[in-house]
Amino acid sequence: MAWNTNLRWRLPLTCLLLQAAMVVLFGVFVRYDQDSDAHWIEKKGSRNVSGGDMDNEFYYRYPSFQDVHVMIFVGFGFLMTFLKRYGYSSVGFNFLLAAFGIQWAVLMQGWFHSFHNGYILVGVENLINADFCVGSVCVAFGAILGKVSPIQLLIMTLFQVTLFSVNEFILLSLLKVKDAGGSMTIHTFGAYFGLTVTWILYRPNLSQSKERNGPVYHSDLFAMIGTLFLWMYWPSFNSAVSDHGDAQHRAAINTYCSLAACVLTSVALSSALHKKGKLDMVHIQNATLAGGVAVGTAAEMMLMPYGSLIVGFICGIVSTLGFVYLTPFLESHLRIQDTCGIHNLHGMPGIIGGIVGAVTAACATTSVYGREGLAHAFDIEGSNWSASTQGGFQAAGIFVSLAMALGGGVIVGCILKLPIWGQPSEENCFEDAVYWEVPEEPKNEALHPEDSTLKPSDQNLGSQSR
Amino acid sequence: MAWNTNLRWRLPLTCLLLQAAMVVLFGVFVRYDQDSDAHWIEKKGSRNVSGGDMDNEFYYRYPSFQDVHVMIFVGFGFLMTFLKRYGYSSVGFNFLLAAFGIQWAVLMQGWFHSFHNGYILVGVENLINADFCVGSVCVAFGAILGKVSPIQLLIMTLFQVTLFSVNEFILLSLLKVKDAGGSMTIHTFGAYFGLTVTWILYRPNLSQSKERNGPVYHSDLFAMIGTLFLWMYWPSFNSAVSDHGDAQHRAAINTYCSLAACVLTSVALSSALHKKGKLDMVHIQNATLAGGVAVGTAAEMMLMPYGSLIVGFICGIVSTLGFVYLTPFLESHLRIQDTCGIHNLHGMPGIIGGIVGAVTAACATTSVYGREGLAHAFDIEGSNWSASTQGGFQAAGIFVSLAMALGGGVIVGCILKLPIWGQPSEENCFEDAVYWEVPEEPKNEALHPEDSTLKPSDQNLGSQSR
Amino acid sequence: MAWNTNLRWRLPLTCLLLQAAMVVLFGVFVRYDQDSDAHWIEKKGSRNVSGGDMDNEFYYRYPSFQDVHVMIFVGFGFLMTFLKRYGYSSVGFNFLLAAFGIQWAVLMQGWFHSFHNGYILVGVENLINADFCVGSVCVAFGAILGKVSPIQLLIMTLFQVTLFSVNEFILLSLLKVKDAGGSMTIHTFGAYFGLTVTWILYRPNLSQSKERNGPVYHSDLFAMIGTLFLWMYWPSFNSAVSDHGDAQHRAAINTYCSLAACVLTSVALSSALHKKGKLDMVHIQNATLAGGVAVGTAAEMMLMPYGSLIVGFICGIVSTLGFVYLTPFLESHLRIQDTCGIHNLHGMPGIIGGIVGAVTAACATTSVYGREGLAHAFDIEGSNWSASTQGGFQAAGIFVSLAMALGGGVIVGCILKLPIWGQPSEENCFEDAVYWEVPEEPKNEALHPEDSTLKPSDQNLGSQSR
Repeated sequence: MAWNTNLRWRLPLTCLLLQAAMVVLFGVFVRYDQDSDAHWIEKKGSRNVSGGDMDNEFYYRYPSFQDVHVMIFVGFGFLMTFLKRYGYSSVGFNFLLAAFGIQWAVLMQGWFHSFHNGYILVGVENLINADFCVGSVCVAFGAILGKVSPIQLLIMTLFQVTLFSVNEFILLSLLKVKDAGGSMTIHTFGAYFGLTVTWILYRPNLSQSKERNGPVYHSDLFAMIGTLFLWMYWPSFNSAVSDHGDAQHRAAINTYCSLAACVLTSVALSSALHKKGKLDMVHIQNATLAGGVAVGTAAEMMLMPYGSLIVGFICGIVSTLGFVYLTPFLESHLRIQDTCGIHNLHGMPGIIGGIVGAVTAACATTSVYGREGLAHAFDIEGSNWSASTQGGFQAAGIFVSLAMALGGGVIVGCILKLPIWGQPSEENCFEDAVYWEVPEEPKNEALHPEDSTLKPSDQNLGSQSR
Repeated sequence: MAWNTNLRWRLPLTCLLLQAAMVVLFGVFVRYDQDSDAHWIEKKGSRNVSGGDMDNEFYYRYPSFQDVHVMIFVGFGFLMTFLKRYGYSSVGFNFLLAAFGIQWAVLMQGWFHSFHNGYILVGVENLINADFCVGSVCVAFGAILGKVSPIQLLIMTLFQVTLFSVNEFILLSLLKVKDAGGSMTIHTFGAYFGLTVTWILYRPNLSQSKERNGPVYHSDLFAMIGTLFLWMYWPSFNSAVSDHGDAQHRAAINTYCSLAACVLTSVALSSALHKKGKLDMVHIQNATLAGGVAVGTAAEMMLMPYGSLIVGFICGIVSTLGFVYLTPFLESHLRIQDTCGIHNLHGMPGIIGGIVGAVTAACATTSVYGREGLAHAFDIEGSNWSASTQGGFQAAGIFVSLAMALGGGVIVGCILKLPIWGQPSEENCFEDAVYWEVPEEPKNEALHPEDSTLKPSDQNLGSQSR
Repeated sequence: MAWNTNLRWRLPLTCLLLQAAMVVLFGVFVRYDQDSDAHWIEKKGSRNVSGGDMDNEFYYRYPSFQDVHVMIFVGFGFLMTFLKRYGYSSVGFNFLLAAFGIQWAVLMQGWFHSFHNGYILVGVENLINADFCVGSVCVAFGAILGKVSPIQLLIMTLFQVTLFSVNEFILLSLLKVKDAGGSMTIHTFGAYFGLTVTWILYRPNLSQSKERNGPVYHSDLFAMIGTLFLWMYWPSFNSAVSDHGDAQHRAAINTYCSLAACVLTSVALSSALHKKGKLDMVHIQNATLAGGVAVGTAAEMMLMPYGSLIVGFICGIVSTLGFVYLTPFLESHLRIQDTCGIHNLHGMPGIIGGIVGAVTAACATTSVYGREGLAHAFDIEGSNWSASTQGGFQAAGIFVSLAMALGGGVIVGCILKLPIWGQPSEENCFEDAVYWEVPEEPKNEALHPEDSTLKPSDQNLGSQSR
């Protein structure tokens, strides 16, 4: 089936309309919060803490915000450049959807969490949360990578950010769940949402594009840029919105430990599952990150460094096994075409993270946290709180996230299936040239032989006779 | 015309001479400021704020400094690697000129702004300002990229840093202009200076090198590394030297908003202006950044998030239109050969930024800022200040910057036109091999056919028979 | 000689065993320190400084930690991707050894420096120190790059981290040496350890792999990513564990200055030593960093900005001369095969750094530091301290580090020489395909002709007939 992939008017109109809507909505709703408003100089004197300018929320959060920002744009963007002919789209479409998504997330999350007297009051924490929300869209993008148009991505972002915010509100505000690093809200939700969408968008003849559904040597190195920035900055991700002081500190340490352990077990399994013991770049690029996903919920709790190591240890194994056995099974038996294997990196580790968080919360005691520490860590007001109840609500959060992801994914998948969004035909998947002006390659450039008939290689001859 | 491009003695002598001069001048003039001197431990007790060690300026500015540092060296350096055969020079010459420029800028800016009792006292803010100053040189480098020798770049840096510092002194100290993110001092000045230099250095037969004046597939991905680090860290750039607290906080938020909006309108226009609706990497790499340039002046003011979105919205459009229509016009009709299109990314958005700043300042009221906030934001001393006067001076700053850029550019361009600096001939522009030892490519490596006659492909045969 | 390079059971077992040991040891020994434990909320009230949450060590160190983290994983990892066919291994093995090394370093350094009541109490400073320790392993990796198996690297990491920690304990705790940026402990020790190991592992017929012991065009650009992140973040490296306040601030300034000067003299020498005056990427990638190494010890002292420039000036020259003259000499006459030239980047500059530190310490006076400042900078307790004694101990630290490196290197080298670790044969060095599943390249892809006989280019034909 051939769709019209010329987006000349559809993409510009979609972008301009969405952006114009953002301008109007920001104009009506968004203002600076107390720490970013010029009146701050008057207010800061009346605070409890005498830290002066340094007490501005900016200094607690901004370095972490920038690390998270790098993860969303460079981390996710470059992680997906492993495909030989889809680097422009991986980085470029990720850039586009994230730039739209953060604006829409500031609004959606703002209405739920920062709405005061008719205004959404924004500060650095809103920017971090917007990046987090978009992170879940980037996760879902990984499942449908190479098979959709940028318009579909913008539509998906619009809906997914909305659903994310509703789910987040249910978990954080109604169920009082702790999920600072988003194992449930970001990873579990994003992964199963994306998997449901790709299941709806199933393409029976995708094998027509299979020669482009893989890496070349250099594209795998570009992908490692994404992997490493995700891996290095994940401690910032999981600690970015934790409470000031020990919680942020602890979240960073736990994430650091879990990620380190995960690298060794990913390498171990990658080698053990290859008949000649060779390592597979796919595992090194992805499974090494599963440890960060899986401590997302519990990182700020008293998980203990060895607890983090155990989580990372398990996730490196689970994730690599998933790449080798589960992804092919999902594709052949359940018609789930998961381009980047997000089920192995975000799906299963996300659920593990939710469970680890529930168990860690259920085991919280005053002997471990101290009386004040426990009250602070779990925002306890009044005396109804008990650790086991908290654990129960944490577990409930996993199921709510899954339900929202599956339900939302079906609806959004059906919308994206409409043949009007300029999606590529099955023989043109994983190909930048559908949506991008790609530089002409000289005739004997082997990477892209499919272009060689387009034009006699004048350029080549010309430069040789120079 | 063929110049001698063997720089064997000229480049070493230039580098050693400049560096030796830096050592002597630093020895005579540069000392640590109060916050970086070992006497700080005695001084900190006597301060107003009781923040202890955290009150050291280092902790307010250092994370922003590092982000700016990344923008100058990785951001600008890799942004220019889009050319197929000029990656070494783009990154390497940018590295060289910036390393020299920051030292000279510490001195020049120090004499104007940090000179006490015969010494320039340096701290982290001086390092940021030096990076800023060099940023304007990197901008100008974009116009002449591929057409000059490293010696010319060092000479240009020497003069441009000097002129930048004078212009900055006029704006910030004499006109009392606010320009924290440098829309005027960095971008407008840098762009029009660079455009004037490239106009003077006009090369009528540059089309002899036109087959190298473009990207290959992977070089565009390298350039995206530059783009993304510039885009992500721009909020740090615009907030790095703002007042502590709300001003830094607000500048980051405004820049974040403007940049996000700019991405969507750049994509929209890029697609709309292509006959098949395809996106052009040049626009994605460059026009998406125009929003950061254009809130440089107003970011720390009460521009409001929606105001920032509007600025970004407009700049994405203006910048992309500039790439499609204005750059070819400037080259064919005004003989301005602007390799990277800096007029679209820094020139027009810089002027827009100056205007936005002037208007925002002219609209400042106590109802928006609060009485203390207004006095603090605009450093008001005494009662002569009025918003409209500030707006007027802001507007004057644009014209001063333009005048300095055009005047200085003519002089420096004429100096650089002397045939003694080892510049490449017109058929050797955009080519690393002129100044770099480039690895031999095997015979059938298509990217660089011009080298294939140099050497029979022994290496190739040898390795095949292995 | 042909060894069995199939690591199918050896590598997985090594990884799983080491990681399981880490889990057990962390379980027995590692707990959160006061600033990362949930009891912190109770403790913070009793502190001297009234900075509130901001007084948590996290906020003093975390931004620097993240910069150091980037240097270890992206900096060192990508710096070594310059080889045409060894990018996967450079980045991937560096990732593996560093992920293991940081865990083992937390334990080893913890036993020596953070052991209280039977527990190692960890906070952000431990994470930085673990990264530092691993930095010295990354340095040593540079010498043996391309010639060893991942198992050998893990074994080396195990031993080198152990020796590093002992050496560090002798220097910092017994000799009371100052070495915040690790000129002696990290660079001198790491470099001479690595050189000794590669001397023991001498391969007489390495020239059989010489066609792969070099770059291609794009691999040199990947390496520049490593270089620039190392160069930009080196001020964070040298200041990361310095005392709060002026010491951190000063260390960053000094490193910034030294690195800037080093770039110009590296470029000067690179051009001067080439017969046509062309620049060599090897020098730009490496020698430009020598200035950061050489101010490692003295950066936090009152070295003065001009002092830093002088150090950088000298090191750019020494390092580039080393690449041109010394590395070939070491290989041909001393049988030291130093793949990355670590002797020029870490060895000689490390020793220079130790000497600069000793001299700077020996010249410390109360007139320069102030009475309190001097006592604070050198942790003086009691009245026995004198600057010249400090200088003497500093100098002694160089020799201790060298002795530990040479002695340890011989022992570890002999262990690694055992023919059981899956090392590559001499005709297969510098080749990813030995340990990695490498994507099939189409037939006429020139970069990797040695693979072209493996498989007829079906893929290629298939895609052309598409």
